[in-house]
Amino acid sequence: MAFLDELQDALGLDYVRTRLPERMAYAYDATGEKHPPDAVAMPGSAEQVLTVLRIARKHGVPVVARGAGTNLSGGTLPVQGGLVLNLLRMNRILNIDVAGRRAEVEPGLVNGRLNDALRPLGFHYAPDPSSMKVSTIGGNIAENAGGPHCLKYGVTASHVLGLQLATSEGELVDLTEADAYDLRGLVVGSEGTLGIVTRATLRITPLPRAARTLMAAFPDLDRSCQTVAGIIAAQIIPAALELMDRVNLELTTTAGFGHFPPGTEAALIIEVDGDPEDIAEEAAHIAAICHSYGATEVRSAADEQERNQIWLGRRNNYGYLARTSPFVWTQDVTVPRNHLAQMLREVLAIGERHGLPINTVAHAGDGNLHPTIPFDPKDPVQREQVRQADLEILAACVRLGGSISGEHGIGIDKLAGMPLMFTPAQLDLMGRIRRVFDPECLLNPGTLLPAPKGGF
Amino acid sequence: MAFLDELQDALGLDYVRTRLPERMAYAYDATGEKHPPDAVAMPGSAEQVLTVLRIARKHGVPVVARGAGTNLSGGTLPVQGGLVLNLLRMNRILNIDVAGRRAEVEPGLVNGRLNDALRPLGFHYAPDPSSMKVSTIGGNIAENAGGPHCLKYGVTASHVLGLQLATSEGELVDLTEADAYDLRGLVVGSEGTLGIVTRATLRITPLPRAARTLMAAFPDLDRSCQTVAGIIAAQIIPAALELMDRVNLELTTTAGFGHFPPGTEAALIIEVDGDPEDIAEEAAHIAAICHSYGATEVRSAADEQERNQIWLGRRNNYGYLARTSPFVWTQDVTVPRNHLAQMLREVLAIGERHGLPINTVAHAGDGNLHPTIPFDPKDPVQREQVRQADLEILAACVRLGGSISGEHGIGIDKLAGMPLMFTPAQLDLMGRIRRVFDPECLLNPGTLLPAPKGGF
Repeated sequence: MAFLDELQDALGLDYVRTRLPERMAYAYDATGEKHPPDAVAMPGSAEQVLTVLRIARKHGVPVVARGAGTNLSGGTLPVQGGLVLNLLRMNRILNIDVAGRRAEVEPGLVNGRLNDALRPLGFHYAPDPSSMKVSTIGGNIAENAGGPHCLKYGVTASHVLGLQLATSEGELVDLTEADAYDLRGLVVGSEGTLGIVTRATLRITPLPRAARTLMAAFPDLDRSCQTVAGIIAAQIIPAALELMDRVNLELTTTAGFGHFPPGTEAALIIEVDGDPEDIAEEAAHIAAICHSYGATEVRSAADEQERNQIWLGRRNNYGYLARTSPFVWTQDVTVPRNHLAQMLREVLAIGERHGLPINTVAHAGDGNLHPTIPFDPKDPVQREQVRQADLEILAACVRLGGSISGEHGIGIDKLAGMPLMFTPAQLDLMGRIRRVFDPECLLNPGTLLPAPKGGF
Repeated sequence: MAFLDELQDALGLDYVRTRLPERMAYAYDATGEKHPPDAVAMPGSAEQVLTVLRIARKHGVPVVARGAGTNLSGGTLPVQGGLVLNLLRMNRILNIDVAGRRAEVEPGLVNGRLNDALRPLGFHYAPDPSSMKVSTIGGNIAENAGGPHCLKYGVTASHVLGLQLATSEGELVDLTEADAYDLRGLVVGSEGTLGIVTRATLRITPLPRAARTLMAAFPDLDRSCQTVAGIIAAQIIPAALELMDRVNLELTTTAGFGHFPPGTEAALIIEVDGDPEDIAEEAAHIAAICHSYGATEVRSAADEQERNQIWLGRRNNYGYLARTSPFVWTQDVTVPRNHLAQMLREVLAIGERHGLPINTVAHAGDGNLHPTIPFDPKDPVQREQVRQADLEILAACVRLGGSISGEHGIGIDKLAGMPLMFTPAQLDLMGRIRRVFDPECLLNPGTLLPAPKGGF
């Protein structure tokens, strides 16, 4: 039987989409590239995922898993055609075990919806990527997503206790952190190349009793970075410690969120959470540190509404920037925290060298930067400038002992950067691991690892 | 050239041991089995480890890494002969980066010595296996060792930021948690089967400002388990939450540590750490919870000396028990915390069924139990009883949704239990991962995974 016929037999006509307008809806993500799949399958259960994988394997068709499509590195793009596996139907919360501090969910569940269900119980699922209102748990796991509050609570990998994985060879396997080899940890962040996550057991955490959010303004980037180091050195672990540069602050201000003294070049958002008395003390200590490093203003959110405004301003940053130009390129690199100021300077210098306005927001506490470049992708000169600047940013980060990917993944975007960071022996090792899970190179081919002879 | 000649040429005569008395010193660990290696190599650097691996591969000789030999599951036993790689010469602290919160060390460094170096700086390396005074960082990594304080701080895997691994194919590769695939996490807990760790970058943590330790006595096991659940439900995360049963309490008391009301069947050691005011409040809250579940006594350590005495009593538990009989078998299983009481009851029933006095200490907060069985290994009837009871404990733990290994590893001890927990598909997947790193099955063969056709 032909591939599509078999697929439609298995899932029903409604859940296999082949018309071009429908396929085009799955052709893009935030990288801006367009690669329409040959078809879209919408399985409703782990068993249907297995069936789809078996059929795809039989016909040698690539399979690319997709949640909300908020991916920032091309990890959801069917660059070699084939089938997009849309997991949004599998969006159930299967169980919330408050005493055991865990929740069992399907991969298509939106992060924010899980948190909506947990909040009335006094709990949260801590990883909070800026996309959390729309991005799915499956996508968060595939990218090992981070977020502002991962400084204190840890990234996605720290919150995934177990996974059910549908393998390309048609088996369902349960992976937990207690296994002889931590295959669970291997799958988190593997960008859909090792199998399809069909269920996840997540750690849930009591909501903090209270939180306090400070905004500190600085006349230059260096002082803001020194303040980050000063806070950490004072043995305070804030719940979040974010840095925004001048351009981002202006966009935020223009959008109606916040106001800053004239001459502000950088601001930190610093949040502490926990016991109300403790955080009052910590907030006072942090404010003093900010002033000692030359903050021109330190403001504490007066109430929950003002606190939400600050975070809304920060989370929408990418959106504000996107309004200013036809397209915005966002990079994601991590450097040791003590090299943050140096890396920010390098990014500015790279921007100047190529005549590009590069702005940066950073999860400063983690040393994770997001330099962003607004540009017009229709202009081939600008495109080449951005490509070149991008590679230089990756190289600078590797030179400073950092990592070319923080939380957005490798996808197709950073394939060219991989040899900057990994030796041939390391790439070979990773390639062989990939083939253990996917001997026929059908899962998300053309992404994550530069193709060796024989391809992925 | 012959294998040993080549080895002696590479390391020098002093660092290759072949005489039987020397080899016998590497033939055992805490499992009690004896398997002398054919030779012992003592490399002094990562390059020498590589050289040894290359020579061993050329001659097809198995290689078993060893630190202090405190292993509890047979993971350091050369069950198929070959070479023991003694890593104790590689015991340097290479760097302590206080601002970056990390330390770089060699694998043969003793855990306690790292902590001795960190204490004056106001830091610690948090994972604290009971063997920490003698066991090495390399061994802790190979076993993904836990300890009482891992309840709050996380097990070894959460504290290993990066590894340098010498592969069986003779390459040095750097693995970090930021890599596309988390091979670092795969190697932690892999019991020497994926390569030899030649350097580790560890997370270091500020020492808590203060700590307070409580001992609570209970008239039965159930009440102690209910108290564990009650403390967690009150959203307190103690630094440690340990359970000891009657026999262990009696041994501790006899050894001069502590005293308990008559009729005490179980006790909890509960430690909180952090800000002095907070922990005073938390300790009072915990004491109230203990009383509400029927504790007959709750005592708070009056000073640091009494606190150390409590921990010394707990850490030496295994030693006290070892004095009571020719040999003590220690099991290591984990169940969901809400099944702790049920698992304790099952363990007691299994002991009664086989006429064996099984005692238990538990990292109760993690649901991790160590049932221990004193017995005479020279008595074949007792040996068979212990073997049978052991398998029943593993089966009970799997039935309750637990894991057959908490922190002591699989080694040779739990090979028979692996099929209880893993499907053939899972075992096959793990076997294929192992072969990626070790295609010729020379690293710790005969351990960790039941041998498929062709062997490991």
